[in-house]
Amino acid sequence: MKVNGLHYHTIWVNENDSSVIEVIDQRRLPFVFETVQLKTETDAFEAIRNMTVRGAPLIGVTGAFGMYLALINYHETIPLQEYIQEKADYLKTARPTAVNLAILIDEMVDALRNYTDKESVIELALKMATEMKNREISWSEQIGEYGCELIEAISKKKNGEPVNILTHCNAGWLACIDWGTATAPIYKAFLKGIPIHVWVDETRPRNQGARLTAWELRQAGVPHTVIPDNTGGHLMQHGMVDICIVGSDRTTATGDVANKIGTYLKALAAEDNQVPFYVALPSSTFDFNLSDGINEIPIEQRDASEVNQMEGISPEGKIHTVRIMPEGSPVANYGFDVTPARLVTGLVTERGICEANRESISSLFQK
Amino acid sequence: MKVNGLHYHTIWVNENDSSVIEVIDQRRLPFVFETVQLKTETDAFEAIRNMTVRGAPLIGVTGAFGMYLALINYHETIPLQEYIQEKADYLKTARPTAVNLAILIDEMVDALRNYTDKESVIELALKMATEMKNREISWSEQIGEYGCELIEAISKKKNGEPVNILTHCNAGWLACIDWGTATAPIYKAFLKGIPIHVWVDETRPRNQGARLTAWELRQAGVPHTVIPDNTGGHLMQHGMVDICIVGSDRTTATGDVANKIGTYLKALAAEDNQVPFYVALPSSTFDFNLSDGINEIPIEQRDASEVNQMEGISPEGKIHTVRIMPEGSPVANYGFDVTPARLVTGLVTERGICEANRESISSLFQK
Repeated sequence: MKVNGLHYHTIWVNENDSSVIEVIDQRRLPFVFETVQLKTETDAFEAIRNMTVRGAPLIGVTGAFGMYLALINYHETIPLQEYIQEKADYLKTARPTAVNLAILIDEMVDALRNYTDKESVIELALKMATEMKNREISWSEQIGEYGCELIEAISKKKNGEPVNILTHCNAGWLACIDWGTATAPIYKAFLKGIPIHVWVDETRPRNQGARLTAWELRQAGVPHTVIPDNTGGHLMQHGMVDICIVGSDRTTATGDVANKIGTYLKALAAEDNQVPFYVALPSSTFDFNLSDGINEIPIEQRDASEVNQMEGISPEGKIHTVRIMPEGSPVANYGFDVTPARLVTGLVTERGICEANRESISSLFQK
Repeated sequence: MKVNGLHYHTIWVNENDSSVIEVIDQRRLPFVFETVQLKTETDAFEAIRNMTVRGAPLIGVTGAFGMYLALINYHETIPLQEYIQEKADYLKTARPTAVNLAILIDEMVDALRNYTDKESVIELALKMATEMKNREISWSEQIGEYGCELIEAISKKKNGEPVNILTHCNAGWLACIDWGTATAPIYKAFLKGIPIHVWVDETRPRNQGARLTAWELRQAGVPHTVIPDNTGGHLMQHGMVDICIVGSDRTTATGDVANKIGTYLKALAAEDNQVPFYVALPSSTFDFNLSDGINEIPIEQRDASEVNQMEGISPEGKIHTVRIMPEGSPVANYGFDVTPARLVTGLVTERGICEANRESISSLFQK
């Protein structure tokens, strides 16, 4: 998508030096637009861990490029395959909840298994990481096309009134490579001229909605309103939301969805007010080994500073971090929650839309 | 309750000059503890409107003292009763959602109706405002006693493990005169030595949970943890909440409850996970004219700056207000939502605990 009129992806190979990977530093948005260079697997690990990059699809692709960087830095002190496994294990621990980080890295480890020379594995790793990146883009576009049909169908009943879409966190192009998952249908609908308006959940504690989704939508010119996370239930009670579309960090074979903390509360409100609740996800977020999301998906606990401090910009343009609660009050910071399948109207995937149950998911994704 | 070891109410008559009312400036907590003097009805109106004072019981009592200040400043340019009605109408518009502001002011207007001389009405207004204040304190204590029984009953089943109580916003002593509504059972249980732990919802956009409830609980030494508003559903899914207790700004005759925006989402999660959801309220929040909270209770919309800006304190102790989202992204700021009676386990009132339905409420509050 475009940033200040120029087309960007969230991750790319430096055009002058193919041993350098570049990413947008998402920690500094919306105040500063800046890119960061990754030169080692440790850079990739840290970029994932400290959320320079975030969002399940982008985390996975960054992990894949991290393997590529690790191979460039292989110095033959240990056997190649042992080195590959060690680096794969390391990179997979950068974030615990997003399953596609592990899936993409395992896919790469498998493909590299029969190679013994450094040059071949570097070449193959770059080719695979690039293919994974392009695959995510094409999946996002397909999700966009399928999801757009849902918005278009609602629009036909609204006589030109905008379709009100509520989204939580940032499952936008910044979370992916391009287009996004939850936002892909929004961008496709907007480009088709369908009147839409997006309610953007602020998404405490890291404010990815207010900081990233609002920034994305503004760059693209999509009408939107930022709301505190507490607000969606009230809007749904008053008929002000036509459809919810959120992303997923991990999806079970039965359709349970782990997504940013607070998603479950919006799904409950949607059910209580008969608002359709869709989850847009590339198949890379499926974990077909799991069937009980609430009990089986590990939920990351993050640093207290994300809750008790807040970053913002002063009227003079200076970025400050301030403490926003009493010194010494303990905080808890769970990164995700699980929305059980019974609250999900449908899953919008690159292969089409299915219901959130084992049978319907299997019919699209035969193993 | 105590502040730095000294006993305070949230509002009192200045001990040297009875024409001056003093309040705690709640906008500056938890960073600065400061009191403010109110000398005119305009001071009282502004203190309510700009949230120097907040919380339905305190708003009502401040309105009553506002009438007293208005009468001190009566200069006989218009007939007394006309003046009283004009000032009552003015003060009642300071905040639209809390019904007890109107109820207490109307109660005072009624009592003053047959008086014609300034001195008598001043004396009576001060007496009534003081009685209303004392009545709120005694109601809070009674709510505390009844609610404490609920906590004690849960504690008996937990073998010494702390009872985990979730609360939203600040229905604490700062919202009242002393003890609080939702916090009164918490303080009573704590003073009785029952092991408890409180999950404090941050309560965006004004962060009354993180700023005020956490500060109150810390001053009193009650174990607590501040959480983003998005977190409660996850905690309830994992058995980490034993009971929810919140306050109410307006309660219908049928048991629908208007409280701080986001309360409805927690009530949905409580129902979905069989967690008891109680609303603690003095009878002054009942509006017996209403029977459909969602359609009949007006919901205040507040300034965008509460959402797109955040106040906090720097490591150097300086208070900053920073913008926390892209410049120019529109925001919406609804102050309250309505939790339908079907999601409320019970109402904890000064007269005892009843179910959230017309019959049970009527049995406690015969008109």
